[in-house]
Formats: sequence, C-alpha cells, structure tokens
Amino acid sequence: MNRPPLPRIMLEPLVRSALLEDLGRAGDLTTDAIVPVEARVETVLVARQPGVIAGLDLARLAFKLIDPAIDISIAKADGAAVAPGDLIATVSGPARGILTAERVALNFLGHLSGIASATASIVAAIKGTKAQIVCTRKTTPGLRAVEKYAVRMGGGHNHRFGLDDAVLIKDNHVAIAGSVTEALKRAQQNVGHLVKIELEVDSLEQLAEALDIGVDAVLLDNMGPEMLAKAVAMVAGRAITEASGRVTPQTAPAIAASGVDLISIGWLTHSAAVLDIGLDFRG
Amino acid sequence: MNRPPLPRIMLEPLVRSALLEDLGRAGDLTTDAIVPVEARVETVLVARQPGVIAGLDLARLAFKLIDPAIDISIAKADGAAVAPGDLIATVSGPARGILTAERVALNFLGHLSGIASATASIVAAIKGTKAQIVCTRKTTPGLRAVEKYAVRMGGGHNHRFGLDDAVLIKDNHVAIAGSVTEALKRAQQNVGHLVKIELEVDSLEQLAEALDIGVDAVLLDNMGPEMLAKAVAMVAGRAITEASGRVTPQTAPAIAASGVDLISIGWLTHSAAVLDIGLDFRG
Amino acid sequence: MNRPPLPRIMLEPLVRSALLEDLGRAGDLTTDAIVPVEARVETVLVARQPGVIAGLDLARLAFKLIDPAIDISIAKADGAAVAPGDLIATVSGPARGILTAERVALNFLGHLSGIASATASIVAAIKGTKAQIVCTRKTTPGLRAVEKYAVRMGGGHNHRFGLDDAVLIKDNHVAIAGSVTEALKRAQQNVGHLVKIELEVDSLEQLAEALDIGVDAVLLDNMGPEMLAKAVAMVAGRAITEASGRVTPQTAPAIAASGVDLISIGWLTHSAAVLDIGLDFRG
Amino acid sequence: MNRPPLPRIMLEPLVRSALLEDLGRAGDLTTDAIVPVEARVETVLVARQPGVIAGLDLARLAFKLIDPAIDISIAKADGAAVAPGDLIATVSGPARGILTAERVALNFLGHLSGIASATASIVAAIKGTKAQIVCTRKTTPGLRAVEKYAVRMGGGHNHRFGLDDAVLIKDNHVAIAGSVTEALKRAQQNVGHLVKIELEVDSLEQLAEALDIGVDAVLLDNMGPEMLAKAVAMVAGRAITEASGRVTPQTAPAIAASGVDLISIGWLTHSAAVLDIGLDFRG
Amino acid sequence: MNRPPLPRIMLEPLVRSALLEDLGRAGDLTTDAIVPVEARVETVLVARQPGVIAGLDLARLAFKLIDPAIDISIAKADGAAVAPGDLIATVSGPARGILTAERVALNFLGHLSGIASATASIVAAIKGTKAQIVCTRKTTPGLRAVEKYAVRMGGGHNHRFGLDDAVLIKDNHVAIAGSVTEALKRAQQNVGHLVKIELEVDSLEQLAEALDIGVDAVLLDNMGPEMLAKAVAMVAGRAITEASGRVTPQTAPAIAASGVDLISIGWLTHSAAVLDIGLDFRG
Amino acid sequence: MNRPPLPRIMLEPLVRSALLEDLGRAGDLTTDAIVPVEARVETVLVARQPGVIAGLDLARLAFKLIDPAIDISIAKADGAAVAPGDLIATVSGPARGILTAERVALNFLGHLSGIASATASIVAAIKGTKAQIVCTRKTTPGLRAVEKYAVRMGGGHNHRFGLDDAVLIKDNHVAIAGSVTEALKRAQQNVGHLVKIELEVDSLEQLAEALDIGVDAVLLDNMGPEMLAKAVAMVAGRAITEASGRVTPQTAPAIAASGVDLISIGWLTHSAAVLDIGLDFRG
Repeated sequence: MNRPPLPRIMLEPLVRSALLEDLGRAGDLTTDAIVPVEARVETVLVARQPGVIAGLDLARLAFKLIDPAIDISIAKADGAAVAPGDLIATVSGPARGILTAERVALNFLGHLSGIASATASIVAAIKGTKAQIVCTRKTTPGLRAVEKYAVRMGGGHNHRFGLDDAVLIKDNHVAIAGSVTEALKRAQQNVGHLVKIELEVDSLEQLAEALDIGVDAVLLDNMGPEMLAKAVAMVAGRAITEASGRVTPQTAPAIAASGVDLISIGWLTHSAAVLDIGLDFRG
Repeated sequence: MNRPPLPRIMLEPLVRSALLEDLGRAGDLTTDAIVPVEARVETVLVARQPGVIAGLDLARLAFKLIDPAIDISIAKADGAAVAPGDLIATVSGPARGILTAERVALNFLGHLSGIASATASIVAAIKGTKAQIVCTRKTTPGLRAVEKYAVRMGGGHNHRFGLDDAVLIKDNHVAIAGSVTEALKRAQQNVGHLVKIELEVDSLEQLAEALDIGVDAVLLDNMGPEMLAKAVAMVAGRAITEASGRVTPQTAPAIAASGVDLISIGWLTHSAAVLDIGLDFRG
Repeated sequence: MNRPPLPRIMLEPLVRSALLEDLGRAGDLTTDAIVPVEARVETVLVARQPGVIAGLDLARLAFKLIDPAIDISIAKADGAAVAPGDLIATVSGPARGILTAERVALNFLGHLSGIASATASIVAAIKGTKAQIVCTRKTTPGLRAVEKYAVRMGGGHNHRFGLDDAVLIKDNHVAIAGSVTEALKRAQQNVGHLVKIELEVDSLEQLAEALDIGVDAVLLDNMGPEMLAKAVAMVAGRAITEASGRVTPQTAPAIAASGVDLISIGWLTHSAAVLDIGLDFRG
Repeated sequence: MNRPPLPRIMLEPLVRSALLEDLGRAGDLTTDAIVPVEARVETVLVARQPGVIAGLDLARLAFKLIDPAIDISIAKADGAAVAPGDLIATVSGPARGILTAERVALNFLGHLSGIASATASIVAAIKGTKAQIVCTRKTTPGLRAVEKYAVRMGGGHNHRFGLDDAVLIKDNHVAIAGSVTEALKRAQQNVGHLVKIELEVDSLEQLAEALDIGVDAVLLDNMGPEMLAKAVAMVAGRAITEASGRVTPQTAPAIAASGVDLISIGWLTHSAAVLDIGLDFRG
Repeated sequence: MNRPPLPRIMLEPLVRSALLEDLGRAGDLTTDAIVPVEARVETVLVARQPGVIAGLDLARLAFKLIDPAIDISIAKADGAAVAPGDLIATVSGPARGILTAERVALNFLGHLSGIASATASIVAAIKGTKAQIVCTRKTTPGLRAVEKYAVRMGGGHNHRFGLDDAVLIKDNHVAIAGSVTEALKRAQQNVGHLVKIELEVDSLEQLAEALDIGVDAVLLDNMGPEMLAKAVAMVAGRAITEASGRVTPQTAPAIAASGVDLISIGWLTHSAAVLDIGLDFRG
Repeated sequence: MNRPPLPRIMLEPLVRSALLEDLGRAGDLTTDAIVPVEARVETVLVARQPGVIAGLDLARLAFKLIDPAIDISIAKADGAAVAPGDLIATVSGPARGILTAERVALNFLGHLSGIASATASIVAAIKGTKAQIVCTRKTTPGLRAVEKYAVRMGGGHNHRFGLDDAVLIKDNHVAIAGSVTEALKRAQQNVGHLVKIELEVDSLEQLAEALDIGVDAVLLDNMGPEMLAKAVAMVAGRAITEASGRVTPQTAPAIAASGVDLISIGWLTHSAAVLDIGLDFRG
C-alpha cells in the first residue's frame, strides 16, 4: 500500500500549539536555568516496547520549530516495526532545544505509534482473511487527521473522516425516518454523486430491506460470527460489509473468518496505550 | 477537595475546533439528508461501564454551540461515580443538532471520563495511605488543561502543567550540569521566588547530595518499595517525596506503603482507555 | 430536495473576518461621525434583479455581530426566487449598526445569490432532462463551503468539496500512472471503502478501458453532444456520467439531452456575477 | 505607475487557509494514491484567454507551501498582458506537490487575473481621457487587499479600502443628518486631519450645497454624461469628481468624456469572470 | 465631539487573549482554592488618582467573558473626568468570577485611562489655542485601535492609524527620492484620491519646496516656537500644519501659540503611566 | 544570572500581529509610492538615551518577516547598558523593507528597553542590599511574557506569570475565607505539590497568624521601612519576604535596607516610559 506522509502545512499548526501549550508564558525554566547555551548533545530515540512507528514528522517538527539547528536522522520510518532497544532516530545539536522540545516530540510520537501498534497487532491477528481493519470517528478531539494517518501506518484503513465525506445512517437516523427504506431514499435523494452511503443494521430483516433499496455498504452492528456469515451470504457482493462492536484481538479472527470486508474498531484511536519510546543521551 | 470547573473561555476554543473538525466543509450529510428540521427527540447519556465522570461542560458546549435550543440536564456531575446503566444527563430538543453534536460530545466525555476513572481506581487502590496520585506532562497534545482537570475529578492531583510553572531537574539536566549540586545551584540562582524545584534522583547518593543543597521535592525514579522507604527515611520531611516509574494498580499499594508523598503516573493521561458512554433515544 | 442551512459555527468565523476586514483599526468613520447613537431606522433588503436568494444567514450574522439589537425579518428565504423590487427582508433598529454592517451583509448576500441565480438559470435551461447541474472545486478561496451551499440553493448539486472526500483522476494523473488501468488500480487499492472514484476520460477508448476496470463515475471532458450520447450508451448504467467543459446556457440543453447524469460547471462559483440587492430606507 | 507587490506576511495567511480548505482532513487522496513520491514533472501555466495577469505571488506561495522543492519561474509578471497560449510561468519539481497545489494556485491566479483583465479593458476603453478607473468596497469577503491589488495591476486605482480610511457620506447618512450641510459639518468636526471626505450627491442642488461647505471629493451617483458635464463645470476643480452607477465598457467612454476625474465600478471586484489559465504538462 | 465606542467585535479578541494569557493552563489557583462557588460580593471600581476614564467596555467584557452573571453598573463613562475616590463603576455578583477577571479588567482600564488622562492634561495645557493634540503610530503592539480610542476619550485627535491610511513622507523617504519635490510627485502619482499626503520638513526651505508642489499637511519636525510661527505664516492656510518633537506639558503652550493646527505627541501612547484605579470590596 | 532569550515560536505570533496591525489592508503607501524596489540602505539603531536594551529578537523578526534579505548585526545585546549615541545594531539591505518594518521594530524595542531600563535603575538604587526587584501581573495585555523577559534583562526577577503558576492570597481572598488561617488552609489543601503559596498581609498580627500556619512567602503590603524591619525580624527566615506598594527610586533604598528579600513594583511593566531609540540612515 502507498503510504504518503501528511503535508507539513497540515502538521505545523498542531505542533506549534503543542509546543506553546508546554512552554506557557515563561518557557523551559529548568533547561534555561541549567543548560549552557553552547552545550550540544547527541541523543537517540529508542523503542522500549515492540510496536510500529508513526508520527516522526511531528516529532521532527517539534525539534525544528524550537531550534532549526537540531539535526534529526531517521533510522526507522513511519510504518516500520520496532523491537525493544531499536534505534528510531538520532537527534543531535543544541542541548537546550532538544531538552525543551523532547516531551512534545515524545507525546506525539508515543501517541501515534501507540495507535499504529494497536492497529498492527489486530491486523496481524486476522492475517490470511480478506478483512481489512478500519478506524472510526471516535478520535481524540483535534487529532483526527493524524490519528487516522497512524492507523494507516499500522496497516489499517480509514473509515470516513468526518460528518461530511460520506453518509453513515445509524439506528437513530432510521428511527426518525421511520424505516430503513425511508432513510435510504432520503439519503439517495439528497447527497452528491461522489458520496457513498452506508447503513447500520441490527438484524437480517433490516439488511434485506437495505439491499432491496440498494446501498454502498452495510455496518453489521454487534453481530456474532455466525450471524455475520449469514449477513455476508445475504449481501452476496451487492454491498461492502462491515462488522462493528467491541472487537478484541481475541474475537477478531472469528469475525474476520465470517467473510466480512471490514472490521471497524473504535479503540484503535480512542483507547490505544502509547508506545513507550525514550530519548536517551548517547554515552 | 474543592473542585471548581474550568471557565468556559478556556473550553470553548477546544469545542469549536472539535466540531469544525467533524463538520468539515459540508456539515452532517447524513442528518441533513434524513432528519426533518422540526424533529425533536429526548435522549439520555448513559454509562455503559463503571467509572467516574469528567467533561460534562465540554459535552454541553458541543450541543449548545451546534444549537442553543438543545437542553441538557445533568444527573451526575463531574467527579461522580457511575455504574453501568446510570443516567448521566438528558439531552433533549432539536433532533438534528443532537445527532450532529453527539460524536464530539461523546469523544470529549469518554476521553476525560476515562482519565478520571483510571485515576479513581488507582486512588482507591492506595486508600488508607498518605500518598497522593499525580499526573505528568505526558498528555495528549492540545488537551493538557482538560486532562489535568479530569485527573482532579478522579481524585488525583496535578504535577506541574508545563515547562514554565516549576523546575523539574531530570537526569539529562544533571548530566549536562555535571552534578546534582551544580544543577540545583543553577536552578536556585535563576528562578523566581514562587517557583519550586524538584529533582529526579536515581540513587540514594544523589538523594543525599540533593538534601545537602536543599530542594523542594525529589522524584525517586524507578525505585522499588524498599529503596523508596529508605529514601523517605533519609529525606525525613525535608522535601516532598515522589515515586515514579511504571506504576500499576498492582504495584501501587506497596509503593504507597513506603511512605512517599506522591506517586506520579503517566498513563493516567496518555494511555487510559475511554469510559464507554452512550447516547440513547428515550423510548 | 432537503436544503438545511449551514450551522452558525461554520458561518460565524467568515462573517467576523469580513466585518473586521471592513472596520479596519478605526471603525466606521462616516457613520460614527454623522449618525447619532440613538437614531433608529427601518430598512429593506430589496432585489434589483430577478434571481434566487442565498446567504441570508450570513447577512443576518453581519448585522447581529455588529449590534444584537438589530432586528431582521426574512420575507424570502434562501432558495426563493425573486423579481426586481421584491422585498427580501426588513432590517430595523439602531441606525449606526445597520449602516456599519450593510456592505458586508450585501457582499455576502449578493455574491451567494449570484451563484444561486446562475445555477437556477442553467437548471431551468435543462429542465425536463434527467441531468443534474453540479459545481466544481473552482471556488473563491475561503468561501468553498458557502459557495457550494449557494449552488444547492439554486437547485444544483455538489461535486466533491475538496481533495480529500473523493477521488477524481485527471489526465495528468493518468499520464503519470501510464494508463487508465494502472491509475484506477492504484486508486482502488489505496482508498477507503467510503470513497468513490471518478475518472476523467478524453476519448471513448479511455472510457472502455475504465469500464473494464470498474469506476464509480466518469467525467467526459470536452465532448460534443453526439460523442456524449455514444459515451452514455457505452456506459449503459455501469457508472455515473458527467459532462464537463465550458458549458453555457446555450449549449447545456443539447448536452443534457445526450443522456448524461451530470453537467459540471466551474463558472457557477468562479465567474457568476453578483445578484444586485440593495438596502433601502423605508420612507 | 509604481506597482509594488504585497508583502508575503499579508499573503501567507490567505494561501495557508485556501490550501487547508482544499486538503481537508485527509489530503489529496487522488494524487497520494496514484503518483509515486519520486515522480517529477515540468508544467507550464498558460493563458487560455487574452487578459492581464495578477496573483502570481499567491500562486507561487501555494506551490511552495505544499513543497518548497517546487521551482517556479515567472515569464509574465503581474500586470503583464497575455494572449491565448502565452506562457505565464513554468512550475517544475515533485509531481505530487504540483498536482496537490494546482487548484488553489489557479483559483487565486484566475480570480485576480480576471479582475485585472476586466480593469484593463475598461481602462483601455477610456484611453485618452483624463478619467481614472477606481474600484469599490464591493469585494469578496476576505480578499479585499488582494482584489484591490489586482485592480492596480490592471491599470486601475483604489478607492478607500474600508470603513476606516476615509469618509464617504452616502444618501442614507445625509437622510439621517437632515441635510448635506449638516452631514458634512459633522464629518469635518469628527475626523482626523489625514482623513479625506467624499460625499455622494444625487442632484446638482446637493452638489452646490456641498461645494459651499467644502468637500474633498464628490460622488456623482447615477448621472448621465450631460449632467456629469454640468456637475464637473460646477465643481470647477474645487473637488475631485467621481462618476458612479452601473458603468459598462459601452457607457464608459461617454462618462469619461464628461470630464470627471474618476469612474468607480463595483463589478471589477464583485462580478469579473475569472481569466482562464491552465496548468499543462510539458511534453 | 462625537465619541462613539468601538464595536464589541473589535474588542472581544483582545479581551479573550488577555484573559487566557492570565489564566494559563490551570486557571485561577488562588480563587479556586479559597472562594466558595456560591460566594457573592459587591465591589467598586474607584479612582485613586485624578484623571480621565477610558476602557470601560474592555473591563466590562473581561468580567462578562469570565462569568455572564457578573453585573457591571457604570457611574463614570469613558471620557469622564474623575477625582481620587470617585466611584467609576460597581461590579457585583459571583465572587470567583470577579476576583479572576479583576487584574485583566484593571490592566485594560488603567492603561487606557492613563492615556486618556495624559491626553487630557496636555489638551488642558493648550486650551484657548486652536491647536489640536494628536497621537502617533508609536503605540503598544496589538493595542493600536484601543490606544487611539483612549486618546479621543482624553480630548485628543488621531493621526493616521497605520501605514496604509495616509501618506507620511519622512526624512528618510525624501533622502531616497532625492528631493522633497520628487518625493511628493511620486506620492501624488501613486496613491488613491482619498489618501491625504503629509510631508515632514526640517527647514523652511523644504517647506517652501513642498508648498510649491502642493501637500495636504506638513509635519514641522523639532522646530522651536519662533520657527514654527514663521512656518505657519509661510503656509498661510495652504496646508495643515503639525508640530512634532518631544513636546511636554511645559513646552506645549508656546508651541500651540505659534499657530500650528496640530501638535503630535508620541508619549501619549508609548509612555503614559497607568491611571491608578482599584477594585475594592464594598463594606 | 543566566539570561536565555525566548524561543522564536513564542515571539513570532506577536511580531506578525504587530506588523499586520501596521500594514492594514493596503500596506506601506508611502514607501511603496516613493522608494524604488532596488534601493538599498544601511541604517543604524542608535540609543538616544541612557538605558538597558531588551527586545532585539523582536526587532530582528520584524525586519526579517517583512524581508528576509534584510541583514541585522547586533552591537549591543539584550541586557547591555547603552549611553546616548551608542550603536545598538546595524540594519542594512532593501530600503523598502527596512522603512516598512521600522516602526514596529522600534515600538517593540523601545517598549521593552524602557522596562529593562526602569528595572536597571531601581536595581542600581538598591545595590549592596540583598533585596531583589520583582515585577507583577500589572502588565500590558498580550505582552506579559516579553515584558517579564525585559524585567530580567534589566536585572530584575519575575513574580508569578499568571493566575495559575503560584498562589497569591490577597486581602479580598482573606476577607471571603474569614481569616488568614482559613485561607491558607484551603490553599494548602487544594494545590499541587509544586505550587508555592504567598500571602498578602497588612499587619503584623496577620503575619504572625500566617507564620503559625506556614507559608512560602509573605507580601508585606504598604508598610514603611520600620514596620518592614519588624516583619522581617518576625519572619526570621521562615518565609520569603516581599515588600510592595508604590515603591519609587527614592523610597527603594530604605525599603531594601529593611532586610526584605524582594521588592515588587508594578510600574516597571505598566508605566515605564519607552527608551528612545532611533533608526538613522548611515551617511
């Protein structure tokens, strides 16, 4: 899969905000008091856990925006798997800038690598099936674009990015419309020709109704592997099938084996633990 | 403990950004296509897991900024414990606005309640000791103020908020200064009279050196309970003692029993899973 | 068609910026010098040309953000057709605020109504055919969301809103990929399941190649009505067909008669003249 | 006439916003999926219509902010006249960046060149008279500074830039003040010594009244050439004379021949069609 | 003189920024720790020095943006003279909000009232002459609009607000142009009809040259009263005359007596001391 | 004392805003009209008064953001003392950019150097005592971080930077709490371990009460030298002592002789006059 980075113009505002959040009004009191302006160090970003890296462009920007004289040399690019102790990058140059930017760089890198790593592990768990792992809109406020990027780095794929790039009809929409049929018809009449429509169904009856009207994708909510297999059979290729609902690494293989096209998982972006990465002085 | 909310002026920019991130350029395609402008609903925010609530002001703002006609009535305030099925709040009014704002409201509420809940469980684990649980600067970029607020809602306390509100001398600062003594002296000479100084120590030798010079607090890094107890005895009240390093609910009681004043935990803010909260239509 | 307005949270930043752009550093010198603070007026927004209205929410916000005491009462809502002399709205209250906000309100209203009116006239020109009129990404920088809204108010539909909500493979992309087939395959492999793919074709050969691989929509670039009809016949319902390329009200009917699903027109958003609307004092 | 460009600090926020508006949350899906990171192209910006160029600094910034490695070489500077087929600039370097920035660059360049071209054609229509063409405050929200710059590139001149850099007393101000005399006196008493005062008059009676009090400029609203000539004679050099009101290339020469100093035209900025400029791959 | 306030849309961003600057990431630690949420107080803004008030709208906004329940009742409006002990306004309501907003409110009010008071005292010193006191562009970065407003409240008038609302040709411009004549001609050729031109002259020779070409105003730089009187006589009403250069309350009367129209003073905005205003609890 | 500069990421937004405030919508009309694009000049920043320099990084940024080709060479760094006529820096390169940026550069440099100079003079006045001079939160809205930096450049020290980096219990907080004891206890219970607590006392009784409870620092408000000496004796090293209240260069020595640790002075930041610095063309 092609995995282009996000353009700097999208990342820079995030990194500037994060640095200013940490610097506050008085800057880095500790480093300013203790570290001479001429001190230079060579440091390494090192993985302390196995996982997959994501977010190096944000980390790099954090160092560069504090001091353009800091030099970053990448050993493991975004998307690379790391083992504990692996060198990810060297960061060398003025000691003050490196120490001042360190926490922000690590906060981005750890957070996004945590998402990439969680994604990679669930992708590995269903290897051999045709199912793809996709994320959701359950993201951390302000970080959606980069969190979805991290999912891609972990080998996952992206569901819609917001309320405006696809239609996803949920149970509450159906309830208000009165029926699956009515909800689908309203959607078809009102959206542009490049907008896909997905519908959440809770039962095979709803699924049948949706297939009668026609739909691009169906979200099969909280169904067990057997019911999923029945749904997949019913759909028979007429729509993309997505399984959803508290998927775990344990339950994923069975779900994937049901033949669904996609498995969507909210915790990739809302609950993945950070990947432990440290910045160490090189002896 | 007194737990005042954050002023709206601090929260509003976060919520506006999060809503615009979700609305994109075209707004809520699904709701706009399906839900009539006059439809009104009554919905409930319900806990699906046990935990502690935090972030209701952000959730409320999400609804209000989309449509001021939406009515929110709080049943469980920030800081309250909830059991699965507990009603947290009712949200009623125009259906469109409620459905459009739902995900952003839940993203804030789930994220902050997750932090509050994680904090509360570790606070409970050390109940009966004098130790306090504190968070770190390992926060999600852009959300530090509200994540630290969530820690308070869970019964924890806050470490410094940024690089500029206290001095925390880490191993790398000591390495550059040449010694604990030199690092402490530089800090004392350079910071204002309302700035406290904390020093990270890895050994009892470093601790002794720090106590000789004088320091407000010592961060005892990655020490086991026995060594912590020795450190506490050495300090003998001359400084605040903070234990740090991969604390888990399992290891916390023994650490707390060592007599330290504080236990700092990064994962409260960087790795706590969301608290599962749903928005349900009331029948 | 359902035509919900854009939420205020999306409009307010645009209107604030426009007002500050006009107020500069010293505010409305003329009105401040001449108009007493207690003066009140009743004014009317009146159409000076036939057309279709769009942008009243922006105009209303312009008045309200300058002075919340200004009262706006809408006679012709967005999407309504007007004849010269038709009353669109009354605007009454403090004279100062009304005169200060007038130009910004009219700039938004005239610009968006111009787009809606141009759209409506071309929609009328192809009435009776199944073709829909759609806009493009050739919009005024900063105003894309509201210009696309204006197209909807004029009875048109929206093409994609940006680079990120659908794939549109143009001739240059095909040139780099080497072939239509290769370009389509790369797109299919790399985008999410809710992203539609459209391909620009210049010839029936390219069209045949695209249909072999499968594609959601085809943009038939700069083809005359006869060639379009052939293309539509070749497609035979397997993809949405879009005609594009310097469409005018004169050429539109023949293009529409070719059977295409969509006709896209850049000048709706980049070159439509404003609709002439005035603010008059009521005698 | 001296025609300095606008400083980058004024242009950069506009271009950043426009790029982010187009990139959305997911970036350029099409290019990212299809174009290899190492692909390089040489492209040309070519005029498809006769006209006058304006906005190259904005176009250049659009490319540079996406990828600083893109090289732009200008063949026709802002203010230059072009014929169909004329090379305006070459744009070469990384294919991805060029394709991603293309639309934003062209949207700025086409819009501003459209304004410059419309201005140039009306300037040409009145050549040989002493009249100057000036724009108004009827500009596109957010783009006033650059639209007024485009008018200058087309050989026109600028009226005031906002409510705060000069006084323009309109009919409604006169109505509230009660008389031309009273309105002018209030203005003279209240504004600073570097603020000029212009008054809109509808009749020769009002003009006489204004000249009695003294005024820097008079806006002669909606008068025909004969009445304009009478007004110019009455003014006899005591004030700058400006003709206004639905001026067209057809009516402009007669208006200019009346002897007025200025002819102001709203449609230069609110209704000029874009100049058609394309970005072509060089074979 | 008519002294309208600045519209809220211009003030609100300044006050929001100032509040967030003071609140930082953790808010008002002191008040949050000590003051119960239900505590209510009645406080008074009281002058501790004689002076003239300016900035009440900013102070009011500071309180209202922290808590809309705070009630402000104005006793002395902007522009009013106060004696020590005079009540300026009462501020009553929730104690927390009042204490949290107090410093920001006072910082604005003290700073602007300081400027108004300095202006008023120099205006008083030259009473009886025809000279007006005007400010300069030597303002505090970010506060130009409100500082110039404060000058108006003190009875002064405003020079240009920025580089773009009038031409002021200084010695360095003349040096580059080669002569006063050449500088003036370039300016006349290049600026719009509503832009006034002022020229700084250091000698009567330069003044004569300027008057030959024609100019709207002349800045007579660092001339003593006698030379100023000569200059005024030479000008003989053909241009506005402005005296400039380290004017003090002591030297102002003689300068004013020279017959100049304007006396411009930088220290009104860059060096005026704050007016001492306190917020006291009412007994 | 170690005096590191503020990172550019904190300064750049201030300088950008200030430049845009001065450029307005039309830029530098005068320079654009008169100065040829190819003109180059060499200029010098020269002190016109004795004082201490602060703000050169802001001045440099002002020139560089207008034109990166401008070259700045510093002769007297921030913190250096200057005599009238001293060269501070040379600024050479494109004449347009230098003239356009001049005022903003000087506004920052004069304002901050004024604060540094005022600080230095009061620091000099108490030389030989152990007292330090500290600033307050009485700063110009928007400029707190740089004004506090200027105080450091003048040899002063910083009090807290905002409401959130330390506790300062004032008379009004004590009044609401009911007693010094209660206020202190609430503060101690509610703030984090790295937050210091200072209390304002008006009498020796309050001081005794505070010392009984324990406090990090006491602000001795408006006490004369004798009472301050008594207070210092009572404190006997148990807290930092700060004298406050209308300190002047005349009264400062006696206050400092009382043995207090700190003397806080609001006028350093709210009322210091600018240091007169000029930009002169080099012959």
